[in-house]
Amino acid sequence: MKRDSFGSAALVLDRLLRELGRVSDEKGSLTRTFLSPAMRRANRMVGGWMRETGLSVREDALGNLIGRLEAPRPGARTLVLGSHLDTVRDAGRFDGALGVLLPIVALRHLRREGVRLPFALEVVGFSEEEGVRFPSAYLGSRGYSGRIRSADLALRDENGITVGQCLRRWIDPRGRRAWKRPARAHSPRELLGYVEVHIEQGPVLEKRGISCGVVSAIAGQTRARVIFLGRAGHAGTTPMALRRDALAGGAEFVLAAESLARKRPPLVATVGRLEARPGAGNVIAGGAELSLDLRHPADGSRLEALRTLRSAARQIARRRRLGVSFQVTQDNPSVACSPGLTALLSRSVKARQGRSMSLPSGAGHDGVVLSSLAPIAMLFVRCRAGASHCPSEHVKIGDLAAALDIVDDFLRRLARDLHG
Amino acid sequence: MKRDSFGSAALVLDRLLRELGRVSDEKGSLTRTFLSPAMRRANRMVGGWMRETGLSVREDALGNLIGRLEAPRPGARTLVLGSHLDTVRDAGRFDGALGVLLPIVALRHLRREGVRLPFALEVVGFSEEEGVRFPSAYLGSRGYSGRIRSADLALRDENGITVGQCLRRWIDPRGRRAWKRPARAHSPRELLGYVEVHIEQGPVLEKRGISCGVVSAIAGQTRARVIFLGRAGHAGTTPMALRRDALAGGAEFVLAAESLARKRPPLVATVGRLEARPGAGNVIAGGAELSLDLRHPADGSRLEALRTLRSAARQIARRRRLGVSFQVTQDNPSVACSPGLTALLSRSVKARQGRSMSLPSGAGHDGVVLSSLAPIAMLFVRCRAGASHCPSEHVKIGDLAAALDIVDDFLRRLARDLHG
Repeated sequence: MKRDSFGSAALVLDRLLRELGRVSDEKGSLTRTFLSPAMRRANRMVGGWMRETGLSVREDALGNLIGRLEAPRPGARTLVLGSHLDTVRDAGRFDGALGVLLPIVALRHLRREGVRLPFALEVVGFSEEEGVRFPSAYLGSRGYSGRIRSADLALRDENGITVGQCLRRWIDPRGRRAWKRPARAHSPRELLGYVEVHIEQGPVLEKRGISCGVVSAIAGQTRARVIFLGRAGHAGTTPMALRRDALAGGAEFVLAAESLARKRPPLVATVGRLEARPGAGNVIAGGAELSLDLRHPADGSRLEALRTLRSAARQIARRRRLGVSFQVTQDNPSVACSPGLTALLSRSVKARQGRSMSLPSGAGHDGVVLSSLAPIAMLFVRCRAGASHCPSEHVKIGDLAAALDIVDDFLRRLARDLHG
Repeated sequence: MKRDSFGSAALVLDRLLRELGRVSDEKGSLTRTFLSPAMRRANRMVGGWMRETGLSVREDALGNLIGRLEAPRPGARTLVLGSHLDTVRDAGRFDGALGVLLPIVALRHLRREGVRLPFALEVVGFSEEEGVRFPSAYLGSRGYSGRIRSADLALRDENGITVGQCLRRWIDPRGRRAWKRPARAHSPRELLGYVEVHIEQGPVLEKRGISCGVVSAIAGQTRARVIFLGRAGHAGTTPMALRRDALAGGAEFVLAAESLARKRPPLVATVGRLEARPGAGNVIAGGAELSLDLRHPADGSRLEALRTLRSAARQIARRRRLGVSFQVTQDNPSVACSPGLTALLSRSVKARQGRSMSLPSGAGHDGVVLSSLAPIAMLFVRCRAGASHCPSEHVKIGDLAAALDIVDDFLRRLARDLHG
């Protein structure tokens, strides 16, 4: 396989990404949320590209766009490739879209070369992953996996519209067709696996100077709210020794979290929000509320870090005569990528890129949900400065080519494995 | 002098403080700002109490309420006693009001005892000290001292009304009387001094277990805005080693300021405001803006602390690869109380309270402005838990009695000094 051929495929992919990137609910920036008017246009556009590629296209009850290529032999299992078509507000054009459009372009290339795969293939554009419109994420992949609950349908957006209403209007604006909660799209034994291509959204590949890496696991995540309570006081008249400064306690906690994570890679610990109360320059803070975000690919390590920081918060509070509350608001276990499928993907990376690297994903992805249904593997693609969720999100043409090259090899390799 | 007599005077003073504390621009809480409707009612109420005490009452061009008792002998100098009648929002009833009402009650007591003072006496309720309505403080005492500039008159409140308009409406709502910028009320040689009684607004007297203390100096104050700039990033996908976390830099600065001030009493350093940007739990902060408030009775020590913290901010930024901006927004030198008048006041404190203590004032007071016109002395009165600028501000009846007792002694002592 010549790299040149993927150069021109990469230019095609880049063009499709740009076209899709213009499909937005807002003028001048890219925002495409669950079942919005832009989402309908996006599904129509991407569905068209799927059809041109020879896929048969349908939309499921959650608005997921599914393009299917049947296997030559009936009863063959299905490989699912995909990612999400919704975006955050003021998004970049790669997050999600890359994992839907890249498989389409890779498939075009394979078909043009006359390669026939011995398995069925589905390319899925999930309708919702970012959790922007409703206070819930992964609605698309959960629908595809048969994991939508009644509580999900009752969630409301900022206009008071529920997920259920939204879905009924999606299938028929006049409300004549009944909407039915979907069962999972496939039983696990029908599936070969789920493979997701996604931008890294971090700086590791760039730092290592390589285009693509293989994801080892999607990190577990704990989010907590930490509140220190002291005593507000006059900044001029309260001697240092008599203060109970909640912000100073909060500052110590910020540094304790940072210092712990520095000592224990790949643990990451982030305090991104710190609010001092009353928050006036001439008043000693009586209260400080902090966010804590902890992630690690190994759940044990994450939970140990949580215990350490909870105890650090208590020690800080005791030493400073502060009150403290430490409340875990979210706790998601990590999801390991499947060893078999991931090893196969790594071989493709090594074969086409020369060397491979394995890295954990600190962000969540549709693969988290799909792992309940099928073996999963993920390919990360380098993005400029690790920037994501912003208009400056960027992937070089050369890296698009490298990723196409790898996915091409992976599909051929998987085909050979099944034949052999 | 029997303490009992001041017990009943203290009850009177407490009643007047309560009555005045109900004169508010807001229902259910005490807020009385410069030249507001409540301020007009307050001046009328306090003016009435001044007249009952035998003072002749006038209002000057800044809305200051001035009650004057002439000396028996023409040409005698004037002692000014006073504080401010405006309040912060949701204030306590002692801050300011105590220094206006206590001299009135003390004077009633002296007159009832038949004591005639050989000097003239003015009790002044300054119309503005807190800087709430307009972005400026000390308008009242600056007017009294002849230090109002054109720029002050052009300042606007949140409704767009200027100080000048406000003053013209104050003297005549129909705008027929011309308003004239006032010269100082007295030339320095007409004045014996200015004495202000004020709650401490801090916990030092309570900690020492005494009712009153004498102020040595009003601390100088530097306020600065410190901004750290790093790079925002994904909390899950950016390894610790590659972060440029502005909030972590800000946290280090909070602790550097605290640690420096702890080592160098009576320096106080406060970061009361810390804003992380964008301020989301799952985003590494790309920016952090902090307030810094530094106070010390000795200007040299304050400025040395400022240099030290400026350099600490630079070091933190360099080590963390952050940008930093350090901008001084306010810089007021300290004001020493007058040695002569303060020594006299200290003798009264020792005589009536048994022991005295000298303490700096971390907060600014009208005395700062009056020091340009006359020797000043200040008496601090213990307040519960050091709380001020809040409804829980409280002074015990016994401490009101102690302060009345001391001021009574001070006036007699000053009279003897002048006779002797």
